[in-house]
Amino acid sequence: MALNTERAARVMAAAAERGLSQLLVTDPLSIYYLTGVTTEPGERFFGLLMADGAAPVLFVNELFPLEHPEGCRFVSFTDADDVPALLARYIDAERVLGVDKNMPARFLVPLMESGAVAQVALGSFAVDGARAIKDAREQELMRRASAINDACMAEFAALVREGVTEREVADQLLGIYRAHGAEDHSFPPIVSFGANAANPHHTPDDTRLEEGDVVLFDVGCRLPEGYCSDMTRTFFWGKPSEESVRIYDIVRAANEAAEALVRPGVRFCDIDAAARRVIADAGYGPCFTHRLGHQIGLDEHEPGDVSATHDEPVQPGMIFSIEPGIYLAGNTGVRIEDLVLVTEDGCEVLNRFSHEPRRLDR
Amino acid sequence: MALNTERAARVMAAAAERGLSQLLVTDPLSIYYLTGVTTEPGERFFGLLMADGAAPVLFVNELFPLEHPEGCRFVSFTDADDVPALLARYIDAERVLGVDKNMPARFLVPLMESGAVAQVALGSFAVDGARAIKDAREQELMRRASAINDACMAEFAALVREGVTEREVADQLLGIYRAHGAEDHSFPPIVSFGANAANPHHTPDDTRLEEGDVVLFDVGCRLPEGYCSDMTRTFFWGKPSEESVRIYDIVRAANEAAEALVRPGVRFCDIDAAARRVIADAGYGPCFTHRLGHQIGLDEHEPGDVSATHDEPVQPGMIFSIEPGIYLAGNTGVRIEDLVLVTEDGCEVLNRFSHEPRRLDR
Repeated sequence: MALNTERAARVMAAAAERGLSQLLVTDPLSIYYLTGVTTEPGERFFGLLMADGAAPVLFVNELFPLEHPEGCRFVSFTDADDVPALLARYIDAERVLGVDKNMPARFLVPLMESGAVAQVALGSFAVDGARAIKDAREQELMRRASAINDACMAEFAALVREGVTEREVADQLLGIYRAHGAEDHSFPPIVSFGANAANPHHTPDDTRLEEGDVVLFDVGCRLPEGYCSDMTRTFFWGKPSEESVRIYDIVRAANEAAEALVRPGVRFCDIDAAARRVIADAGYGPCFTHRLGHQIGLDEHEPGDVSATHDEPVQPGMIFSIEPGIYLAGNTGVRIEDLVLVTEDGCEVLNRFSHEPRRLDR
Repeated sequence: MALNTERAARVMAAAAERGLSQLLVTDPLSIYYLTGVTTEPGERFFGLLMADGAAPVLFVNELFPLEHPEGCRFVSFTDADDVPALLARYIDAERVLGVDKNMPARFLVPLMESGAVAQVALGSFAVDGARAIKDAREQELMRRASAINDACMAEFAALVREGVTEREVADQLLGIYRAHGAEDHSFPPIVSFGANAANPHHTPDDTRLEEGDVVLFDVGCRLPEGYCSDMTRTFFWGKPSEESVRIYDIVRAANEAAEALVRPGVRFCDIDAAARRVIADAGYGPCFTHRLGHQIGLDEHEPGDVSATHDEPVQPGMIFSIEPGIYLAGNTGVRIEDLVLVTEDGCEVLNRFSHEPRRLDR
């Protein structure tokens, strides 16, 4: 374990561009990205204070025995210690402190009240920006995570049988992922039958499969090295309704139109618009209720989404999802999602699992 | 779904005692506690703004279709909306805003920067204080969750067989919980063999069971109604080392000394001290590295821990864990944990599973 000095320098340079010279990083995945050290601190404080001209300081509750990463100072504390007071010893109160977007108020408000810091600003854009550009090793791990997802999707589809419930299917996925070398789900899997597919965030329940249902899997795994996959496929069980078939074709066309557009310089909002236009032109605009996609890497949702409000251009090394959907409440729903890696002159679609419509009862 | 006006009034009264007259509640479990409405907002904003003299306002991303609870105003928004600007319309900028301890900086910092609020303070103590006193129905649900945990622990112990790995055991627990009517784990289960039990937060891995190991289960389930259980038992596989037997007896004595002390008026720190003294007197003080326990209810860890720094008295209706442990790095570890409910004149230990040392190989 050692501070990754190249990444740390990139982060501090990005912070400096917006006038920040000290950052308190508290996202455990960002700390892992920078130091190789990982833990799940739960409700306890875990932070890396980075400042120009000094070695970063890692703050760890002694409940979590960690290797001290080379290149960092190390401060351990107990449940009885006053964390804001401890941080105050290392923070420069005269300078703005950049804080993590996820830093909870229970640490931030006392820190501000303690007078340890004159002003705070959101600072995690600097680490998030570095994390958004995946290097060659990270790209390889992301390819591997998606290859596992492709292979597992074929096995997941084979679990679907007459009379099975969503939950019975969902409970079997982790074992399959692990047999393929994944560490865990990257998020709680979504398995939706029939009308449940109209809720994009449905939780698998005791709903039983019925003739004519769509069967939607939105699933991903995390490698032991921490990188995530995320893919959605929608299948049919029995003869689908005409409307299910129609929206399947529209969603597929929206997915493929967006993927065809991805190359350096194209803006996130343009990619979102390309998919949205296909759906709107077919008359289903109001039924595509979410952004087109999100970036992904160590975390299954990383900042910088593929949406109408994000007008920055995509860059080589970025990886994000393309996941258009049409949701007809009380009736049916379809979503088709792949991950794409932006290359020098286009993109590589990391998921190879077919977009062809498929009945699982045959 | 409707605002629970009695709970809301208790919360606002507690806030008023510390000079707060508007609260922004963002803990989904607190919103559930107050309104009966539940969702998992992920990275999206989800909040309930409570202020004296006005109906609370529930802010929900339209991605999460929710029933509008009676007694609340309802504001829905999309991913394209500016949440701080939306909140600003309802917040009184002249008054201090009490915010949730877990409110992330990505909402809090822009809210402060927008000028929508002159001053913030931590405000979730008011909801947390109300949630800490369980009413009769909540007590009944907590009893049921622990009764399931007791029944399942017996089945978990029966999964332990020669050559099994921690993960093979851990992966079977959820199915058993569900067969008993639980909805899910209340936290990722800990299954630790041998020296792994010396890490109180060990994650089950591919370690295989060996003769002479301790076998530690720290497990809990969540009911469909949302209430949690949490219990730890440590067993032996084969003939245990003398030291494992010795620390088992000490930890058991520490657990029982603490449980015998619980009654209204006794301070949390005194209960912690009672257990800690037993362990220190036996020469293992430095090996008990964490607080004695935590409160529990809708969440598996609720505020107000059983620790040296918490000098408030316990009150009837509070439920918390008593979980002393001794951890000998690289060697072995023991923890014994029950949940207790404070009654009018003592306490009810919610876990009935025996504290007797037990070999699982016989």
